[in-house]
Amino acid sequence: MSEAVEYDVVVLGGGPAGENIVDRTRAAGLSTALVESELVGGECSYWACIPSKALLRPALARADARRVPGLAGAVQGPLDTAAVLAHRNYWTGDWKDQGQIDWIDSIGAHVYRGHGRLYGVRKVAVTSPEGEHHILSARHAVVVATGTRAVIPDLPGIAGARPWTSREATSAQEAPGRLLIVGGSVVAVEMATAWQALGSQVTVLARGSGLLPRMEPFAGELVADALREAGAVVRTGVSVEAVVRDGSTGPVRVVLEGGEMLEGDELLMATGRAPRTEDIGLDTVGLPAGRWIDVDDTCRVPGHDWLYAVGDVNHRALLTHQGKYQARITGAVIAARAAGTPLDTAPWGAHTPTADTRALPQAVFTDPEAAAVGLTLAEAERAGLRVRAVDYDMSGVSGAGLYADGYKGRARMVVDLDREVLLGVTFVGPGAAELIHAATVAVAGEVPIQRLWHAVPSFPTISEVWLRLLETYRG
Amino acid sequence: MSEAVEYDVVVLGGGPAGENIVDRTRAAGLSTALVESELVGGECSYWACIPSKALLRPALARADARRVPGLAGAVQGPLDTAAVLAHRNYWTGDWKDQGQIDWIDSIGAHVYRGHGRLYGVRKVAVTSPEGEHHILSARHAVVVATGTRAVIPDLPGIAGARPWTSREATSAQEAPGRLLIVGGSVVAVEMATAWQALGSQVTVLARGSGLLPRMEPFAGELVADALREAGAVVRTGVSVEAVVRDGSTGPVRVVLEGGEMLEGDELLMATGRAPRTEDIGLDTVGLPAGRWIDVDDTCRVPGHDWLYAVGDVNHRALLTHQGKYQARITGAVIAARAAGTPLDTAPWGAHTPTADTRALPQAVFTDPEAAAVGLTLAEAERAGLRVRAVDYDMSGVSGAGLYADGYKGRARMVVDLDREVLLGVTFVGPGAAELIHAATVAVAGEVPIQRLWHAVPSFPTISEVWLRLLETYRG
Repeated sequence: MSEAVEYDVVVLGGGPAGENIVDRTRAAGLSTALVESELVGGECSYWACIPSKALLRPALARADARRVPGLAGAVQGPLDTAAVLAHRNYWTGDWKDQGQIDWIDSIGAHVYRGHGRLYGVRKVAVTSPEGEHHILSARHAVVVATGTRAVIPDLPGIAGARPWTSREATSAQEAPGRLLIVGGSVVAVEMATAWQALGSQVTVLARGSGLLPRMEPFAGELVADALREAGAVVRTGVSVEAVVRDGSTGPVRVVLEGGEMLEGDELLMATGRAPRTEDIGLDTVGLPAGRWIDVDDTCRVPGHDWLYAVGDVNHRALLTHQGKYQARITGAVIAARAAGTPLDTAPWGAHTPTADTRALPQAVFTDPEAAAVGLTLAEAERAGLRVRAVDYDMSGVSGAGLYADGYKGRARMVVDLDREVLLGVTFVGPGAAELIHAATVAVAGEVPIQRLWHAVPSFPTISEVWLRLLETYRG
Repeated sequence: MSEAVEYDVVVLGGGPAGENIVDRTRAAGLSTALVESELVGGECSYWACIPSKALLRPALARADARRVPGLAGAVQGPLDTAAVLAHRNYWTGDWKDQGQIDWIDSIGAHVYRGHGRLYGVRKVAVTSPEGEHHILSARHAVVVATGTRAVIPDLPGIAGARPWTSREATSAQEAPGRLLIVGGSVVAVEMATAWQALGSQVTVLARGSGLLPRMEPFAGELVADALREAGAVVRTGVSVEAVVRDGSTGPVRVVLEGGEMLEGDELLMATGRAPRTEDIGLDTVGLPAGRWIDVDDTCRVPGHDWLYAVGDVNHRALLTHQGKYQARITGAVIAARAAGTPLDTAPWGAHTPTADTRALPQAVFTDPEAAAVGLTLAEAERAGLRVRAVDYDMSGVSGAGLYADGYKGRARMVVDLDREVLLGVTFVGPGAAELIHAATVAVAGEVPIQRLWHAVPSFPTISEVWLRLLETYRG
């Protein structure tokens, strides 16, 4: 093993969170190494956000076009699946990361390709694919940003059934004839939407009582309705007990609790995520392997003043944009501590990711889109806050009806009655993914309701739902 | 003439502003009469926002669909113009207002159909189409909300040329073969977009150096580029000197400064608006006829403690949503004064339309959409503020590229460097109309830049342009 190469900061994992740490520490003039065992850019660029959105956008654009008189007739036919998949391939760079490597080079950071493991305090050992070893030492910080992997439950027969995870679902080069999807969260509903539109017969099997269980209940209801209208089968409250696949080309069967058997050509297990921390040397610094990494409000690991964890791996918020946000803030934290300048860790300060708990946004690119920020009504009530939920049927908004004939959608805002600010907002309907940022600004900005009256939505936009929500609140 | 019928409030003009006054004064328990000489619902419902958006949405949805691989091939053909026009007719209620009348009835206000004129202090005289006369007297307030009409310049030959105004352009029952449009503002560019997409050959003749002169210069540039790409002719810096039309079915010709002559089948004069105040009895209370009505910061006419003017007619902001906003606030003002409760007229208070000057939003439904709120750079500089404009090419946002292949768009935020808040934001690009409300919340909410860092845009949305703007500002 060679002598240690010293950097100010060593980052383990080159997904969006890791890349943003590098961006920030380099901007602060700190020498930085990035260790990545697969593709720089991470899950988001190759097997999640980017390819899934590339698959979904044509489905959503077609759904939008079908709701427009004068245009609808032209788009009743199927999508050109080959063109959609080719475009998806383009957006993933055909699963090559040279573009990201070039960017890292351009900002003067160093990429180590290989498996990185903590190697005691302030040290990382890297084993390259060619079997070379490097020891990197970090003057100021090691940042773990290794993300998550899909969890497949240990069902009888699962190993031989070659199930898809989000990776195969986003990178498949043809549409399966029949796609069984186990799960009801974002991956399940987005991939159901995409593949049903691309020609598969999709069946969604969700264990819970509804889809999108982390959102307001109406989100999952509207998405389930629309999936069914698109021709998918959606079943909730069902539990898969076993999986059967014979040979290498045959169909796959799932056995439900009660004995019912369903057959498909592929099986997507969208059953959750686990931290990629099994084999990154956490034991060498006295931390448990295979678990989420606990962090304080600067994303630093308690008891290890040189060790940070950002992005999915710290379990604060499993979302690309939020990992990037944590990374921007933690990058500033590391730079400030390196420079010996004081931190601002008060809520909403420059050095603590307050939005993780107070204004976490999410957009689900189904038809209809579902987007939310902050607390749901149930979450706010569980937190013991005095709140009121204000609901509005978005089909009553002129701008929505003009956007899409027969617009279906629903909005909810959760008002903190003591402070008269918004704690959370949910929009479900065509276009909701771009509507939610206004709510994110209102929630993160703690803009008083009284001031929101002066934030006038343009007529006739879908955003006029804001006026209707405020009018409904006023009663 | 009959004896006066007494109401708490009499509203002259049943467009969006007038209707919202009625809504608010009725909610406060004040008896209210509404006088309307044409259709209740006003210009917006029949000859502006609603029909224009109904004409434009198919054009924009088709443009969006054409930028989506796998869908683009299906939408290369023309729109079904008859279907679009029929849908537009539906949205205008075939130019009947029974739905609006029903709503007014449902809230217990009284509609007088006919021409209303002030008739001295606190009085309005109404002449119905059948020649009946009514005198209405107002205990608390008369509100003038008569709006505007199109201005047609007095060019040689114009009278015999039967030019279109916004009314004919939004209500036409077939697409003209060749449509000449004189003007470069919102009506001109929206109608150019709609009719070019619906099959007309459009020529835009703008006097100014660019289109959309009230927005940041890049808005008009991007819209002009796209109109040209769609096949329209756009000429700026040209002046129409005369108009010629022979007979009742022949073509129309315009003569440009310099003598060049252009021919079309119809001519839209989109050359500005004038207040509808010529014949509403302003002289009976000592005010000049035919002018915009000056108001104070509660929309009350100085020197007349019973007289208000809301919406276009007060010239604060010629936009439907802003007229409605003024009406909500002025309705509250009238109710408070009637009840003898104190007003909050401090900036952003409940009783003054601060957003008219500080956070005025506008969305233009062209392809690309152009939307803005607050001050442009030039306006901020003219106001003597210490500002910085932060620009971002929206094609660099992943969510934009995934939304539309080859996305073209541009964003600008104008930062007040002394207060570190946003004074104005402009977005131009597909989807911009729904992006702007986040900026409206930020500008009206005076959310500090430092806090906007915690308003995380979801990935991958077009809204991530916010992150890029903030990063660009940080430098």
